[in-house]
Amino acid sequence: MSGNSALKPRNVRDVEKWDREADVVVVGLGSAGVCAGIEAAEAGASTLVLEAGWRGGGTTAESTAQIYMGGGTPLQKACGFDDDPDEMFKYLMASCGPEADEAKVRLFSDRSVEHYEWLVAKGVPFEEGFVPYEVSTMPQKGASLTFTGSERAYPYCEIARPAPRGHTVQRDGVGSGEYLMQILMAVLEGAGAAIQPNTRSETLVVDDTGRVVGVVSRVGDDECLVRARKGVVLTTGGFIQNSEMLRWYAPDVLHCGRPIAAETSDDGSGIRMGVGAGGAAVRMDSVCIVLGFAYGNRDNIRGVLVNGKGQRYINEDVYQSNHGEIALERQAGEVYLIVDDSIYCEPPTEASMAGAAYPLLAVAETPEELEAELGLFSGTLTHTLSVYNENAAKGEDPYFHKESCWLRPLDKPPFAALDLRVGSSPYSVFTLGGLRTNVGGEVLNAEGDVVPGLYAAGRTASGIPAKGYNSGLSIGDCTFTGRLAGVSVAQAPSD
Amino acid sequence: MSGNSALKPRNVRDVEKWDREADVVVVGLGSAGVCAGIEAAEAGASTLVLEAGWRGGGTTAESTAQIYMGGGTPLQKACGFDDDPDEMFKYLMASCGPEADEAKVRLFSDRSVEHYEWLVAKGVPFEEGFVPYEVSTMPQKGASLTFTGSERAYPYCEIARPAPRGHTVQRDGVGSGEYLMQILMAVLEGAGAAIQPNTRSETLVVDDTGRVVGVVSRVGDDECLVRARKGVVLTTGGFIQNSEMLRWYAPDVLHCGRPIAAETSDDGSGIRMGVGAGGAAVRMDSVCIVLGFAYGNRDNIRGVLVNGKGQRYINEDVYQSNHGEIALERQAGEVYLIVDDSIYCEPPTEASMAGAAYPLLAVAETPEELEAELGLFSGTLTHTLSVYNENAAKGEDPYFHKESCWLRPLDKPPFAALDLRVGSSPYSVFTLGGLRTNVGGEVLNAEGDVVPGLYAAGRTASGIPAKGYNSGLSIGDCTFTGRLAGVSVAQAPSD
Repeated sequence: MSGNSALKPRNVRDVEKWDREADVVVVGLGSAGVCAGIEAAEAGASTLVLEAGWRGGGTTAESTAQIYMGGGTPLQKACGFDDDPDEMFKYLMASCGPEADEAKVRLFSDRSVEHYEWLVAKGVPFEEGFVPYEVSTMPQKGASLTFTGSERAYPYCEIARPAPRGHTVQRDGVGSGEYLMQILMAVLEGAGAAIQPNTRSETLVVDDTGRVVGVVSRVGDDECLVRARKGVVLTTGGFIQNSEMLRWYAPDVLHCGRPIAAETSDDGSGIRMGVGAGGAAVRMDSVCIVLGFAYGNRDNIRGVLVNGKGQRYINEDVYQSNHGEIALERQAGEVYLIVDDSIYCEPPTEASMAGAAYPLLAVAETPEELEAELGLFSGTLTHTLSVYNENAAKGEDPYFHKESCWLRPLDKPPFAALDLRVGSSPYSVFTLGGLRTNVGGEVLNAEGDVVPGLYAAGRTASGIPAKGYNSGLSIGDCTFTGRLAGVSVAQAPSD
Repeated sequence: MSGNSALKPRNVRDVEKWDREADVVVVGLGSAGVCAGIEAAEAGASTLVLEAGWRGGGTTAESTAQIYMGGGTPLQKACGFDDDPDEMFKYLMASCGPEADEAKVRLFSDRSVEHYEWLVAKGVPFEEGFVPYEVSTMPQKGASLTFTGSERAYPYCEIARPAPRGHTVQRDGVGSGEYLMQILMAVLEGAGAAIQPNTRSETLVVDDTGRVVGVVSRVGDDECLVRARKGVVLTTGGFIQNSEMLRWYAPDVLHCGRPIAAETSDDGSGIRMGVGAGGAAVRMDSVCIVLGFAYGNRDNIRGVLVNGKGQRYINEDVYQSNHGEIALERQAGEVYLIVDDSIYCEPPTEASMAGAAYPLLAVAETPEELEAELGLFSGTLTHTLSVYNENAAKGEDPYFHKESCWLRPLDKPPFAALDLRVGSSPYSVFTLGGLRTNVGGEVLNAEGDVVPGLYAAGRTASGIPAKGYNSGLSIGDCTFTGRLAGVSVAQAPSD
C-alpha cells in the first residue's frame, strides 16, 4: 500500500471488541480538532480526542498565531477600522479563488465577529492596538491587529474596502501559536473532553450501510479500537509532508522549498481515511506558497521585483502568499529583488523572523554593473529601473499600481540583488486541498451526498482558501470550521 | 444529482433480465473506443460498442487527424529523419509534465513504430512527404509528416534530438479525422464487433464484490441492460462540455474560450461512471489550452509576443499548446502579437484554418504610435522592440532563444498588434485528466488496486499528456491506449 493510498476502512463486523468509546471521536489535536472537541463537549457529547503526538498542538502550535477575522470585530473597531461582513466576503472571494466556496466564505464572513467573541470568551487574548501597515504584518507588544493580506494592494483595494483582519495571539509581543493552543487545550479539558495522546489513527470503521462508527488506532504496538457513537471528526491537517501525495496531486511544489511545520506531521492521513470511507478529495492541487521577502525588512517592498529577464512583473505590495504563487507559477521560480542602499539592511529587523535568509546575489555601484553581475542582457534591468524610478519620483506606478507609500526611486548606491529563486530562498508551502464538506463540516462523497458519521475540518477539508491565501486564514478556517463540525456531530443521532 | 456527480452503479441483483450481452462492452465510439473494439474482437471476444450518437466518430472525427508517433517510423525514415524511442521518450517527459507517467510514456515511445505499422495495416494511409517546419504544422497533399510540438524550440531542442512526429491522416491534402474514423470503424465492423448507436450509457452494473459486470444504457425512453462477461471499456472522452465538472476541477479554463469539439459530447460521463464504481480520477486540473496564433499565417512566429505590460515573455516558436498554457496561466490571458507589414497577412493563408480570427487591435506607422494606441506606458513596447530588433539583426535572441530561422527585425511599417487576449481570440481547450489506469488500461482505485472488470482509455483516462500537450498526442494516446485496453479486456476471464 502506498503513501498515496486511500485507507480502506475496517468493517465493524471485524471488530470483536471496542477498547474505548465516546459519542464523538476527534482525530488530531490541532486548532481544528481542539475547537471541534470544545463545541462537541460543551454540547453535552462525550468527546475523545486521539492525538498522534505526545501532546497536541498541530501546525498551529508552530505558527505565529495569526487569525483572519473581520467584519467589524471589537479589535478592529477599537483600532478605528470600519469593516463589515460584505467587504470581508468580497475580499475573500477575490483572493481565495477562483471558485472559492461561496456558502462557506459567506458564513465565515457573516459569523466572524461572533467567532472573535467566542475565542475571547475562551480566554484567547488580543492586544488592543494596530501595527501600522508600513511597519509590519506581525504583532507588536500591545498590538495584535495587522494587515495580513493584499487588502490595500491593487487590484484588491478596488474590489473591497481595505481593513486589517489579522488578529494575532501573542506572548510578549511575538505571535505564539503554542500559547493559543495551550489556552484552547485547557478549555477542551475543562469542558470534560478526554485526550488520548501517542495514539496514531490508522483507519476508520464502517458498518454495512457505509456509516462511520469508529476508528482503528494504534498505541505503540497495540491496536486500540475506538467506537464513535455519533461520529468521527477528521482534523489531522493537510498533506505537505507526504511526498507521494504531493507528486500525485500538486507536483509543481515538490521542489519549491521547505514545507511549513516540519516538526508536525501533515501526512494526509485524515484525507486518506476519509477517501477510503467514500469521501471526495477536492482542490487537491491548491497550495499556499509563501515568499516572505519582506518579513525581515518591510522596506523591501520599496524594492523592485524582477524576473529572470530583468522585467518587473507585479506590484511588490501584494501579500507574500500571492508573491509565492506568482513567482512559482508565473515566473518559473526565477525572481530577484532589486534594492538600493537605503533599503538594504542586515540582519533582518524583526526578531521573529531573524532566521529568514535573503541571500545577496550581487552588489554593484550602478544599475549597469548590477545588470552585468546578474548576467542579464544589457539594457533590460536598467530599462526596468529607469522606468520605475522616473515614475516613482512622481509618486506614480502606472503599470503595476504599487501604493504610493512604497514608491521612491532606487538611487542610493550600492545597488543589490537579493536572490529569491526557488532553491536559493526559503519558500514555504502547505496544502489547501482536502475532503469535500458542506458548511456544517459533514464529509461529502463525489455525488455530493453525506458520508454518514464522518466530519472534517481545517486543512483536512477544502475550506475557505480554495486556492490563494492570506496569512491567518488557515487558523481562522481551522478554528471556525472545527467549531462548526463539533456542533454538527454533537447534534447527530447516536449509532 | 448534479453534473459533477459520480454515477452510482446499479447492483446486479437489481437487474432482472439482460437485454443484450457480449464478452466486451465498449462505451463510446471515438478513436479510443474503436481501437479497443478492434483489438478485443480480433482477439476473439464478442464485442459490442455502445455509442450515444447516431454514428460514431467522437472528437477525433472533428479533428485534423494528427497522430503523434515516432521513434523511427517508416514515414520518418522515408523523409530522412533519424528518430529513436529514447529521444521520443525524453521529449515527451519534458513536455508532458510535470510528473508524466513514466511507464506509460516509455511504452508509448517504445511501441510507437509498431503502432504506426498497425494503423497502416488497418488501412490508415500516410502520404510519404514532409512539410517543412517553416511552412506549416499541417499536412499538404502528398505529405503527412509535420512538426506538431516544440521539438525544435528552446529548451526542448537541448533536451532531446528534434524530430517531426505529427503523422496526419489526410484527404486531399487536408487532415481529416472523419476519414480516419471511417477507416477504423469499417475495420471494427469487419472484425465482427457489433455497434449499437443512439444508446446513451447511464451507469455501470456491479456485483457484490465490486466487479463491473455490465452497463445500464438507454435507447430513447427504454432502458437497455447490457451484460459484459469479460469487462467494460470506458471511452467516452473527456469533460470539456461539462461546465460543472470544469468548475470543480479546472476552474481556470471556464472562461477561456470555446471548447474543442462542440458537436460531440465530452460530458465526463465515462469518468463519472468510473468514479462511481470505485475508480480514482486524477490530474483533473490538467487541460490542453491551444493558442494557435500562427495557424493561419506561419510567419506570425516572426512577430513578437508581448504581455499586457508590453514585455516579451517567451520564444514565439514554442508550440501553440505551450503558448495557450503560458498565456493563460502566466500572463493572465493578456497577450498581443506585434507584427510589421512584412508579416501581416489577411486573410489567413491556410484553407483549413480560414475561420481562425486574429483580431487586429491597433495599427500604426511607428512603434511609438502603436504603443500609444495600445494604451501602453511610453517606452515599454518600444524598448521591447528595440532590444528584439537589435539582436534579431544579428540573428540572435539571447534571452528567449527563438530559433534563428524566425529572427528578422520588425522594421517595415505599418506595425500592428493582433489581439490574442482571452475573450478576444479563439483559445481552444480540452481536458486531460481522467480515470487512473495502469499501462494495460485497467482502472485503478485510489489505493492503486484494480477495479475488476473495468477499463478506460483515451481522454476518459489520465494518459500520456499528464499536463502539457503537443498536437497529435490525444489521437496518438487514444488509439494506442484503446488498443492496450482492448487486448487486456479480451484476455480477462469471463464473468
